[in-house]
Amino acid sequence: MAALKVAILGFGTVGSSVARILTESPVDGIVLTHIFNRNVARKRVDWVPSSVIWTEDFESVLASDVDVMIELAGGRQHAAEWVRGSLNAGKSVATANKQLIAYEGVELSKLADEHNAHLLYGAAVAGGIPVIPGILQGLAGDRIERIEGILNGTCNFILSRMEKGEEYAPVLAEAQKLGYAEANPTEDVDGLDARAKLTILMRLAMRSQVAPDQIEARTIRTVSAVDFSYARDLNCTIRQIARAERTNGNLAATVGPMLVPHNSPLAWSRGTENMVIATGHYGGNVVFSGHGAGGHPTAVAVVSDLVSISQESRQVGLPSTKAEITAELEAPHYIRFLVRDRPGIVAHIAQSLAKEGINLNAILQKPGYPAERLPFVVTVEPSHRSALKRALAEISKQDFLLEPPLDLQILVDSKN
Amino acid sequence: MAALKVAILGFGTVGSSVARILTESPVDGIVLTHIFNRNVARKRVDWVPSSVIWTEDFESVLASDVDVMIELAGGRQHAAEWVRGSLNAGKSVATANKQLIAYEGVELSKLADEHNAHLLYGAAVAGGIPVIPGILQGLAGDRIERIEGILNGTCNFILSRMEKGEEYAPVLAEAQKLGYAEANPTEDVDGLDARAKLTILMRLAMRSQVAPDQIEARTIRTVSAVDFSYARDLNCTIRQIARAERTNGNLAATVGPMLVPHNSPLAWSRGTENMVIATGHYGGNVVFSGHGAGGHPTAVAVVSDLVSISQESRQVGLPSTKAEITAELEAPHYIRFLVRDRPGIVAHIAQSLAKEGINLNAILQKPGYPAERLPFVVTVEPSHRSALKRALAEISKQDFLLEPPLDLQILVDSKN
Repeated sequence: MAALKVAILGFGTVGSSVARILTESPVDGIVLTHIFNRNVARKRVDWVPSSVIWTEDFESVLASDVDVMIELAGGRQHAAEWVRGSLNAGKSVATANKQLIAYEGVELSKLADEHNAHLLYGAAVAGGIPVIPGILQGLAGDRIERIEGILNGTCNFILSRMEKGEEYAPVLAEAQKLGYAEANPTEDVDGLDARAKLTILMRLAMRSQVAPDQIEARTIRTVSAVDFSYARDLNCTIRQIARAERTNGNLAATVGPMLVPHNSPLAWSRGTENMVIATGHYGGNVVFSGHGAGGHPTAVAVVSDLVSISQESRQVGLPSTKAEITAELEAPHYIRFLVRDRPGIVAHIAQSLAKEGINLNAILQKPGYPAERLPFVVTVEPSHRSALKRALAEISKQDFLLEPPLDLQILVDSKN
Repeated sequence: MAALKVAILGFGTVGSSVARILTESPVDGIVLTHIFNRNVARKRVDWVPSSVIWTEDFESVLASDVDVMIELAGGRQHAAEWVRGSLNAGKSVATANKQLIAYEGVELSKLADEHNAHLLYGAAVAGGIPVIPGILQGLAGDRIERIEGILNGTCNFILSRMEKGEEYAPVLAEAQKLGYAEANPTEDVDGLDARAKLTILMRLAMRSQVAPDQIEARTIRTVSAVDFSYARDLNCTIRQIARAERTNGNLAATVGPMLVPHNSPLAWSRGTENMVIATGHYGGNVVFSGHGAGGHPTAVAVVSDLVSISQESRQVGLPSTKAEITAELEAPHYIRFLVRDRPGIVAHIAQSLAKEGINLNAILQKPGYPAERLPFVVTVEPSHRSALKRALAEISKQDFLLEPPLDLQILVDSKN
């Protein structure tokens, strides 16, 4: 069998790692022939075989005899054009582009099928952790009812550092310095990246096609060091969690910072690690964890996809159907207020919550804060966020609040 | 496409769960047609479709138009005959039989290829956790240098109960009562089951074919409640660990009880859970965990394999070569002595260890034990077990020992 000819589109961190693996640990039947990048001259390295063609002309790669395009350019529009062009030309595609697959994966997979080409995206979710192959090949026999995951390494780095007492802003600055966070961190910290990945997992594991924009994404920017301190009193830490669940045929999904009990596997992840827990009707919880980002781990997923393609190993296809988010996750909540203290505040809060049928669970107030800038915490029994939002809107009308209250879901023990 | 006709060979816990899933949550394109068991009459249940043929005649199933045989009978000889017969007849096979695949998997896979049939065994290692698909499809692009795992749910149940202060014998009795342990527990507690699974993982992940008997398997029977108490002082617990590693081209592998630091993911597993950590040269540590045994989780792996077969999704094949265990794992060790106390014991032990070039690290002695039956612990710096064995043989000649010393490897932080 002739070797599979492979082109890398986008020679950034991951592209460079893919080239590194293919050069250092060559895989039988796979040969790197092209590297495409804008202004390619500044990208050239001397450690790839001299036979590799460096180019900034995508059309020339498309017109060549390349068999597989590795799309690592990121972004939506150009990437979509390149992937479509490649599939239309009968070339297979491996990509790490989560936004592209979240928004257009269903059509692109159909296009790949029409052209008898492969479209693989093992690197699009949780980098080097084989969650997608695990779900497709290993959990196809189950009915996955819940997905919970830490899908964004940047947020996990920031929050696991804040756990040690640091504030958001300096930790973000450090993450940016280390290359873990972009200059504009919104994709990561506001949940858009995790939401795209959750969309893909819901499609594969829960067989439900939802639009990413349907999933509520909440920022971690509003979480403060004091929240970790209160969370610790509740035997919890705080992580950015992506969560989807089907109950009685209704689908709920959300992404944002949540309180995670210390005894949950989700609390074990540190630094840029990712983790996914898939809960099956028959098999219970399956946990995947490891390096969710970074050049080398992500490149492992890409090269593994190349191996699949080179062996003509067709991926298991699980049928999915269009779905709507029709439910809210019901969960206990943590609400942190920052107030100028005066008598009657707790009574007012309790009353506003009661009016929405929300049961107060505990009130926590740590000593050592000034009365004119006092943080304290209320936890409430399982409730829907919409009711909570109404109560908090009512409370926010009061002049004792110094900033909007921060409400976080508290994860309860997963059924196992 | 015609539906895939499926026969279950062996209607025990897992067989019954497979039938349950196929009946309750039917998979498009898969239909259960036969159930084979010795004395099948006593096995009959009324909840499978009436079209299913119950039989105790294997030949009639082989002669039928069944497409896939699900081998769940266990054991070696009969299972091997049935699997060979099925593959020779061009029928695909899904099996949970770890001993069969550990000893004969390489030849059986070749036989399957010759007959253009599938041989899948996702259920043979770690039950419902998709370790095998994860490795084959998701880590094919990496070079796996180490496998560490908790591969036997029975041992994990026993040891995680002993962690709370109970002794081995009563916990084993309870495990037997709960159906977690066999009347003759040797396969589980003496490491033969975990060793078979490690053999399979080494073949797939480390591309090394070793004979199971080459892997040292040590029993957990000699671990006592006092060891957990000392382990805790060392910030560790004790688990049955299966471990294989390649260093400088040399392969080491062993199965047995080991001290696991509390901060290792391996210490998190409770009850009958399984866990596998695969360490790749490029991707670092990937952790898989979940229910490694039990009817339903194991059945999920079997049904997932059926889905693969029904979609003609050929599994990625990773070439493996015959290999020998040529190295010993070098590790710090925990050694627990039970002695009749008298002066000079520590000096004698220290001297015997020094003679073998083994550096003593710490001596731990908890108060509250009688001098005539005194347990105490010595930890030593990284050393090979062969040297340690010689030192312990020398020490064992002394009359102060009341039982042979127990030496356990201490796992050190995995490179990540």
